Amino acid sequence: MNERTVFFVSDQTGVTAETLGNSLLTQFDGVEFKPVTVPFVDTVDKAIQVARRIDRSASKSGIRPLVFTSFVQDEVRAPLLQCQGLVLDFFEAFLAPLEAELNKKSSHTLGKAHGMQDKPSYDSRIDATNFAMEADDGHTTRHYDRADVILTGVSRSGKTPTCLYLALQYGVFAANYPLTEEDLESGRLPDSLMPFRDKLYGLTITPVRLRQIRLERRSVGRYASAQQVSYELRAAEALYKRHNVPFIDTTNSSIEEIASTILNDTGVERRVRP
Amino acid sequence: MNERTVFFVSDQTGVTAETLGNSLLTQFDGVEFKPVTVPFVDTVDKAIQVARRIDRSASKSGIRPLVFTSFVQDEVRAPLLQCQGLVLDFFEAFLAPLEAELNKKSSHTLGKAHGMQDKPSYDSRIDATNFAMEADDGHTTRHYDRADVILTGVSRSGKTPTCLYLALQYGVFAANYPLTEEDLESGRLPDSLMPFRDKLYGLTITPVRLRQIRLERRSVGRYASAQQVSYELRAAEALYKRHNVPFIDTTNSSIEEIASTILNDTGVERRVRP
Repeated sequence: MNERTVFFVSDQTGVTAETLGNSLLTQFDGVEFKPVTVPFVDTVDKAIQVARRIDRSASKSGIRPLVFTSFVQDEVRAPLLQCQGLVLDFFEAFLAPLEAELNKKSSHTLGKAHGMQDKPSYDSRIDATNFAMEADDGHTTRHYDRADVILTGVSRSGKTPTCLYLALQYGVFAANYPLTEEDLESGRLPDSLMPFRDKLYGLTITPVRLRQIRLERRSVGRYASAQQVSYELRAAEALYKRHNVPFIDTTNSSIEEIASTILNDTGVERRVRP
Repeated sequence: MNERTVFFVSDQTGVTAETLGNSLLTQFDGVEFKPVTVPFVDTVDKAIQVARRIDRSASKSGIRPLVFTSFVQDEVRAPLLQCQGLVLDFFEAFLAPLEAELNKKSSHTLGKAHGMQDKPSYDSRIDATNFAMEADDGHTTRHYDRADVILTGVSRSGKTPTCLYLALQYGVFAANYPLTEEDLESGRLPDSLMPFRDKLYGLTITPVRLRQIRLERRSVGRYASAQQVSYELRAAEALYKRHNVPFIDTTNSSIEEIASTILNDTGVERRVRP
């Protein structure tokens, strides 16, 4: 029970504090952390309440809490600096060197990061998400002219979550073409796809992992049989090679890693920045 | 043309460097930045190449580039520290105080942040994303017993992107119940929804904004008429109040802000941490 409480406190959504804090904490194996996120702490009064809550947690557990903060407003950050936790403030650490380099004071304005200040960027994430939903089924190629990239692969190779992540995180228009039995048998891509072949990016996965995923969905029939799964993956990879479609093995990669690799390999530009 | 190039460099996906760097840059209005992300710089050789690229950019533009890095491996970070850019490294700044407080050296291991190290967490994000896709249409309530939260609202009030974000970012199971004409007319919720009413969270939006969004999709007919849009929103808000459904106006909120508010208001726990 040597669990250490970790507070993520922000005058905005807390996404920045969480991202930074969690990245750091993953580097400490074997330590148990109990995370608490407190967003929208945008007044001095609210900040005093949070500081008290952190102090109570310190007294109760006898272990000093970690406090990752991303306060834009100095006066709201101030009460936190008095608390008994180890406070690591992200803006405080980095704004000063940036202000010096840019020779400009930062605006200290709320709602900038992860907010709606940049309306066109924001709309393009929503548009890209709607696009991913509409272009998800692969039954139609009519969306492909608008796509930045078209992910292809056999059923359950990871196409849909990757498309959605590319949309939500980067505003990238990602469509999705599930390889059909006919494609796999013939080793050819359908004619309707050929004009867009330069946008294709393939996903593959090991047979063992794919079988495991498919079994969770449908445990009977050919769909999750070892033979079928191996056949489909072999045929898909042969097809990628024949058509010079770049591809990635998703077995040991997270969505972030797959998305990052695709953008890096294809040179597709992020339409928005997270 | 006083654009300043900003490099996001990482031995992993670059998501942490991008998220944190962009948070900081949003605080500098009126400065034009040209972002370049370079992920997977995981050898000293690759790091030397990137350092040279940054130096070339500095010489060519005559403006010192900003370089946000999140290197886990000290030896790979080293060449970057020699480059001509202003290097702000997130791990370097915060790992030392954390190591001191936790009385433990950090593991300096790749693939921890945004990677697959935590397999169960990773799977629950994929499960939650599949859940959001399957439970998106609202035509069936059979998924609602598994939902952490059920977002409701009129067509195009922001339910689907919010559900997907909750799934991908936090592994939260978010279903989606689109209010029907019958619900709005009767002011009642369908019987099938009543067992799950404590999970409901409503979205609303201003009539002007909703009309604008609907016009982009379908510019003819009643769907986007000023009268219809006002009526639906009035009826939806009346229904939320009658059934004590908490709700949020999404007009001026980003997906991050909506998601953060919902988790904060409902107390639904994040299943994974970004």
